[in-house]
Amino acid sequence: MTNALHNSTDSNSMISSSSPSSTIHLQNIVANWHTLAKLSGSAETGVVVKANAYGLGATKIAQALYEAGCRTFFTAHTNEATEIRKAVGPLALVFLFHGLQQDNVDIVISQDIVPVLNSLEQLKLWQKANAPFPAALHIDTGMNRLGLQIKDIADAKDILPEGRIGWVMSHLACADTPEHPMNARQLELFKKVAAVWPQAQKSLCNSAGICLGKDFTFDLTRPGIGLYGGYSRANVFTPKHAITLTAPLLNIFSPEHFEDATIGYGATLPVKPNQRLGTVALGYADGMLRSLSNYGFGYIKGVRCPIVGRVSMDLITLDITNAPSDTSILDRVEFLGQHANIEEQARAGVTASYELLTCLGTRIPRVYEQPEQSS
Amino acid sequence: MTNALHNSTDSNSMISSSSPSSTIHLQNIVANWHTLAKLSGSAETGVVVKANAYGLGATKIAQALYEAGCRTFFTAHTNEATEIRKAVGPLALVFLFHGLQQDNVDIVISQDIVPVLNSLEQLKLWQKANAPFPAALHIDTGMNRLGLQIKDIADAKDILPEGRIGWVMSHLACADTPEHPMNARQLELFKKVAAVWPQAQKSLCNSAGICLGKDFTFDLTRPGIGLYGGYSRANVFTPKHAITLTAPLLNIFSPEHFEDATIGYGATLPVKPNQRLGTVALGYADGMLRSLSNYGFGYIKGVRCPIVGRVSMDLITLDITNAPSDTSILDRVEFLGQHANIEEQARAGVTASYELLTCLGTRIPRVYEQPEQSS
Repeated sequence: MTNALHNSTDSNSMISSSSPSSTIHLQNIVANWHTLAKLSGSAETGVVVKANAYGLGATKIAQALYEAGCRTFFTAHTNEATEIRKAVGPLALVFLFHGLQQDNVDIVISQDIVPVLNSLEQLKLWQKANAPFPAALHIDTGMNRLGLQIKDIADAKDILPEGRIGWVMSHLACADTPEHPMNARQLELFKKVAAVWPQAQKSLCNSAGICLGKDFTFDLTRPGIGLYGGYSRANVFTPKHAITLTAPLLNIFSPEHFEDATIGYGATLPVKPNQRLGTVALGYADGMLRSLSNYGFGYIKGVRCPIVGRVSMDLITLDITNAPSDTSILDRVEFLGQHANIEEQARAGVTASYELLTCLGTRIPRVYEQPEQSS
Repeated sequence: MTNALHNSTDSNSMISSSSPSSTIHLQNIVANWHTLAKLSGSAETGVVVKANAYGLGATKIAQALYEAGCRTFFTAHTNEATEIRKAVGPLALVFLFHGLQQDNVDIVISQDIVPVLNSLEQLKLWQKANAPFPAALHIDTGMNRLGLQIKDIADAKDILPEGRIGWVMSHLACADTPEHPMNARQLELFKKVAAVWPQAQKSLCNSAGICLGKDFTFDLTRPGIGLYGGYSRANVFTPKHAITLTAPLLNIFSPEHFEDATIGYGATLPVKPNQRLGTVALGYADGMLRSLSNYGFGYIKGVRCPIVGRVSMDLITLDITNAPSDTSILDRVEFLGQHANIEEQARAGVTASYELLTCLGTRIPRVYEQPEQSS
């Protein structure tokens, strides 16, 4: 799987020595899907490719997963669903989480997109549309965000009886905390309400949900972050990294050390004696969030270098005192990848790996490392 | 200025009833530039349009400002500089903050882009290139990020003497804290080092620096955030809002109230009795940062509604109990704009307005409200 790699890029923008860049490891994403499919047991394993596949490139990733055998794709917005339909062709199932509105009924039906109905209003709209295929139904079992309320189940069954609903879904609020009582409570409630449409397929699990075990996986699972290298559970699931993000050093210097000498905006951090600093062409406009200021890190030739001072819009300063002494201008620093673990970087920024991925900016070209063709 | 508006959009993506959208108020950006130009006194007032004009659209904004009389534009990356050159034509000055590398010398010279030189290496490269126009020099006066170190000034003067340096610049670390002693210290040091190239133009100020007064503005100012509605100083500068960001309600519901009923991921917030919630098609993948969870807000028909629970990737839930009772599905919620002040939203998210702008995602079409043509 690891040899015979072919690279392609999404972007017309010049990848220059002074620009950030990223490599998207399609073969690792495919490997993560296989691992999650194994954990999903007898359930089919779909993939969540909304938000441009968490920022990494929906078309390329959907195509690689389709090649690997995946046939079910989940999106949030209508134009995401039509992008995926175009990417993977007519044979795949494409779900639309945000469901149905007056102005997307025609495109949903003509593009054969399965709307995930979230309210009685959406159910009535689907009934009226009289589509030649069934819809999915999302029931809110405790997340209190989107989905049909429990009290509306009987009405829903009247509007769309058995046969008109092909899938019943819900979403776990606390799947990444296995011991949280919410998980068992949502599971029991889901079983009860899903039984109202006994012939419909059942789906409850995201990546973390899959790791809760076979009681949760039902007929169809919907991993997202696990594909993209961003969730792990000890002894159960450790994903491969999906992205390597690097940017070049623009400046290397030893700042003058005196009382009140500081680093960066707001003068938040004093200069240390004999400190060596390196400033990198990457900033929060590229998705390295300001919350990483003084806490995040980059790797230079395998050596961890802490972010010092505030992250700026286009620049990050690192303490490179411990980096190899031959480190020089335009050497590239890894901020996400094999060394710079995404979960650890996210914790340093008081956020989640999801957000580090979806915030990656448009100045970062995505170069795709292709999996070996199976044919 | 406010009538005869013509709208255009940057995007081929469908603006549907269930999508987020934004309006970029070009006439307000131009008005902010005029205000900052007045505050800049006799200095010329350039504009910072790096990072796609802080996420709002560099080409459209540069063109509107050029129409209004602006002739100097600042960028960070080489492809940003070439985009601006194309947008504004051959007569404007285009600066490149990240300076010179081996692989951009040719394009910098052929496109007539002024590199802002940051190190002795870059100065030598410029000397060797023998370009037909002078470069700019950035001297680090205490930010400890990018720019020539003070100890290298004499060498720099040897490499590029009077005439070869057209501009000397530095950057303030604490300009948004007027009382910070750093401001006076950087000012004095800048005066001293800038005098080494007496005929060069001098430039020190960003938006906040301009508000420090005439001692700081020198020959050329470089506002960024103030143009985009994101910095204010009492009795000195209050910008007009540059963007209105809205997204539609996908769901309105009264959650069941019982012990342990909670809202959103991680079950971070209990449901209140008789609470009404509304879930909006906008999330952190669109730039509404996770740090806004339980602290940010949206406005429905002028009524402020707090974000409740965690911001999700594609969805935000609001407490809409106090919103008008006729609020219905697909009504649009304002998250940035005339009501939802960007500085206040940024404080709620423990970040800066800069980051709220640069993180705005690609799913949000930018619709441009054009200023009245002066011709």
